Amino acid sequence: MSAEKLKPACIDTNPNSEKIYISGKIHPDIRVPVRRIYFTGKENIDPSVASASGDDRSKVTESSLLEYDTSGPYSDLNYQPDVQRGLNSPRSAWIEKRKNTGENNVSQMHYARKGIITPEMEFIAIRENALIEQFQDFQCDGEREKRLQGQSFGASLPNTITPEFVRSEVARGRAIIPANKNHSELEPMIIGRNFRVKINANIGNSAVSSSIEEEVEKLVWATKWGADTVMDLSTGKNIHLTRQSILRNSPVPIGTVPIYQALEKVGGKIENLSWQVMKETLIEQAEQGVDYFTIHAGVLREHIPFTKKRVTGIVSRGGSILARWCTIHSKENFLFTNFEEICEIMKAYDVSFSLGDGLRPGCLADANDEAQFAELKTLGELTKIAWKHDVQTMIEGPGHVPMHLIQENMHKQLEWCDEAPFYTLGPLTTDIAPAYDHITSAIGAAMIGWYGCAMLCYVTPKEHLGLPHREDVKQGIMAYKIAAHAADVAKGFPGARLRDDCLSHSRFKFHWEDQFNLSLDPEIAKKFHDETLPAEGAKHAPFCSMCGPHFCSMRISQEVE
Amino acid sequence: MSAEKLKPACIDTNPNSEKIYISGKIHPDIRVPVRRIYFTGKENIDPSVASASGDDRSKVTESSLLEYDTSGPYSDLNYQPDVQRGLNSPRSAWIEKRKNTGENNVSQMHYARKGIITPEMEFIAIRENALIEQFQDFQCDGEREKRLQGQSFGASLPNTITPEFVRSEVARGRAIIPANKNHSELEPMIIGRNFRVKINANIGNSAVSSSIEEEVEKLVWATKWGADTVMDLSTGKNIHLTRQSILRNSPVPIGTVPIYQALEKVGGKIENLSWQVMKETLIEQAEQGVDYFTIHAGVLREHIPFTKKRVTGIVSRGGSILARWCTIHSKENFLFTNFEEICEIMKAYDVSFSLGDGLRPGCLADANDEAQFAELKTLGELTKIAWKHDVQTMIEGPGHVPMHLIQENMHKQLEWCDEAPFYTLGPLTTDIAPAYDHITSAIGAAMIGWYGCAMLCYVTPKEHLGLPHREDVKQGIMAYKIAAHAADVAKGFPGARLRDDCLSHSRFKFHWEDQFNLSLDPEIAKKFHDETLPAEGAKHAPFCSMCGPHFCSMRISQEVE
Repeated sequence: MSAEKLKPACIDTNPNSEKIYISGKIHPDIRVPVRRIYFTGKENIDPSVASASGDDRSKVTESSLLEYDTSGPYSDLNYQPDVQRGLNSPRSAWIEKRKNTGENNVSQMHYARKGIITPEMEFIAIRENALIEQFQDFQCDGEREKRLQGQSFGASLPNTITPEFVRSEVARGRAIIPANKNHSELEPMIIGRNFRVKINANIGNSAVSSSIEEEVEKLVWATKWGADTVMDLSTGKNIHLTRQSILRNSPVPIGTVPIYQALEKVGGKIENLSWQVMKETLIEQAEQGVDYFTIHAGVLREHIPFTKKRVTGIVSRGGSILARWCTIHSKENFLFTNFEEICEIMKAYDVSFSLGDGLRPGCLADANDEAQFAELKTLGELTKIAWKHDVQTMIEGPGHVPMHLIQENMHKQLEWCDEAPFYTLGPLTTDIAPAYDHITSAIGAAMIGWYGCAMLCYVTPKEHLGLPHREDVKQGIMAYKIAAHAADVAKGFPGARLRDDCLSHSRFKFHWEDQFNLSLDPEIAKKFHDETLPAEGAKHAPFCSMCGPHFCSMRISQEVE
Repeated sequence: MSAEKLKPACIDTNPNSEKIYISGKIHPDIRVPVRRIYFTGKENIDPSVASASGDDRSKVTESSLLEYDTSGPYSDLNYQPDVQRGLNSPRSAWIEKRKNTGENNVSQMHYARKGIITPEMEFIAIRENALIEQFQDFQCDGEREKRLQGQSFGASLPNTITPEFVRSEVARGRAIIPANKNHSELEPMIIGRNFRVKINANIGNSAVSSSIEEEVEKLVWATKWGADTVMDLSTGKNIHLTRQSILRNSPVPIGTVPIYQALEKVGGKIENLSWQVMKETLIEQAEQGVDYFTIHAGVLREHIPFTKKRVTGIVSRGGSILARWCTIHSKENFLFTNFEEICEIMKAYDVSFSLGDGLRPGCLADANDEAQFAELKTLGELTKIAWKHDVQTMIEGPGHVPMHLIQENMHKQLEWCDEAPFYTLGPLTTDIAPAYDHITSAIGAAMIGWYGCAMLCYVTPKEHLGLPHREDVKQGIMAYKIAAHAADVAKGFPGARLRDDCLSHSRFKFHWEDQFNLSLDPEIAKKFHDETLPAEGAKHAPFCSMCGPHFCSMRISQEVE
């Protein structure tokens, strides 16, 4: 794939924003990317305000908003992407420096427990804190902040995110930093309930569809729109090469489900799977730099009978493969029996566990059943083993769950897995809307994010129907950016509401350009507005086509004042 | 507009469903429309099951599912629509019969309180109960039903919806049947927390955009996809004629905000509004057959100062108009001071109140503030006055509310308005996603529906940006059908999960056609599937392009069994 081909995804959609970098204090060489969105403050309705700003309606004010940015170097206008070469490697020097600790454990958890603040930790503290810091600069109405105070369900949200706080959360196991020592292109990020809620986008080809080029383009596209991590779920041809291209071009952590490749290696014959081929695969992928592995070690033989009462049986690909293997061989799951050996591999590269929920419910009827919770309990036990090895661990969760049963999932997970980060797929709150499952699941995702879930795995409109294309990936990400943000606001993550307030202020003042620029998708917001009122003058008008000039409540409301 | 033009919206999208009618027992002439979706049961994966059904893979089983249907006669293949003539008038005879009661109150509440079960009430009982009844026929797993038991937050959901239950809920004021005596084309429906959660779609032109023809087409289109009521919010030219065309062609209740037309009558000059012109407008619209009026009688002079602290002031069109009028004239809101006279008009036609939330929050920062709750309290007082007149009443609600403050809205509304049905706009759970506000708001809508909200007013992707087109209307409705259904399941409306279970069963069995047909949007579900696997054979395949043949968890799961 040529650099040319990536271009449309690299161009900054927001004409009034720029990528800036903040340096570290403990580690001065780190450069933390942040997006700064400038306000034009084009004033249109109140002549007194317009004259107060010198009658210059196009005057750009000095105000701006900092935003978390996942897009990597691609959105840096000074950067020339080259997919063949891959991204630069900011982490190489950091990793090199700590090579001589003489130990066989390079995990962030291991360093954290030794009291070491790594560059990754400081990077993350700056990244998460940038928004909080500027929030403290904004004038806040005390009464308002009290009225809107979040409900965090027992999270320990700090007022400031310091490098030491990051370290302590990782040491405690309450947050993970997926960062394989061989993924030096990474811009570190953190997953934990006391940080901003994150989202994951799945990409990857299947035997039926898609090429390597398409998948790398989906990766860049996904990070542009806000994916915090990306899972490569390829099961088709060229699994190794696809993953290699993705890793070398990815500024975000990459997760995989290694059993998929192991199965390809044995010609798709489940009965031929073995610990040996799995181990080789784990090492192969860890060498490449994969940051987290989904490992379905909680699918035990004794759990399988519980799934027979279900409407949709086992719906996790990994879960069904392992259940089948156990049944064929009348043996216990080899991921479970070899779990400590897996830990050894994980800590040698700092690959994080994403303990897979192989028995997650695939429909409302199967939610919160015996199979699901039996596995979750096992995952809690495995978490403790992983922690014994200082291996970073998060727990995967459902799936399909009606709204009223979502909180029980979060509650049990926090209890049984001792607050290890939860990472759920949705959950979908109804089964009746294939082609709209980004919405059925965004509802559940927002709720579980509020209750304490640390990362939300997106669902695209194509879920249950086919492999997502680029536009599906974007639709899934948009729905999940909404869910994650709504969760941050509801749980009371400091400063989360600032962007809402800035956008709403612009809306009320008819600063149309600012309203577009502050939105999740400036391009489409502007396009929708312009469908009926395309003229440049309409961007300075105190109304839109929804109500027209006489019926604009915001215009009339300003006259009331 | 010619009948021709309506056609694309009238054609049944679901090849395996039909419109059937159920007759009444108390009132044998009523014909309640229901959609019956047949299962093809095309079996593909398990040869033993295929042979059990006689090896005939195309054999259509006798199973089917009944579904609530809002689409009116348009979806009846025997019906020839004629927009000029309008729909037939099933209610004419019912209304004619009760003409001689000699009273000036024809409201359903008035009849209900006299112990009369009207044809409308029986119609509704059959309509709401059809799903419940068939649910009792399906084989249910007791353990499963117990595990999935809903959480209703104090609703009084019955096991069977009888005509008497409908009557008692209307008499109690806990549900309304919007059914103007002059809207004889109506297929009656009910709004109340102990019934299925309903959704409303807004249509209507503005001065900037749209024609009468487009609006009638939007109406038919909206009911096809599941709008339970439609509000005509026209503010542009030809308000009267647009409404006339909409009413004569609408099988669902039509709501309006009469102050919009009153304002047009005085040339858009708020200062010239008066009770006299408003009264004329109310009578004019009641005569036409409007089923419910949004009346912003709760915007009081004393509330207005509270809005000055807000980020987005007053965002209700009606609310801002009335606040402006009060300020100009230094007088109390004429809708409040003439409220009892409005009640007289309402009961003479049986127009229901939708008491407008003129001071709803327009952004997260303004949620649950003094202005909003002061108005809600006033709406509670007005409800009691309306009930004194036997006038049916529901209460409008917000708006923009972060997730953690939604429940307080529902709680206060139930308490202050004595369980009069709540009818909310969303609420939107974040402000940062213009162009995706059908999603930001579906999250809040699902939650408040679960907590007890009776009807959810949709939000389209165009909200805040422009007048919605047909496709926007559909996207808004889809998001809200999902929210309403997720709420029904979570609160435990009897049988609500049946459609989910049927669809999930089809999914697990690879009955692709059934999965499409049971979904909210069969056309798009099929289209998405066919994008990558268009061949007819793929509809009988035990996989899709998402995972491909080797990695389909459902196929492997069946092998496990």
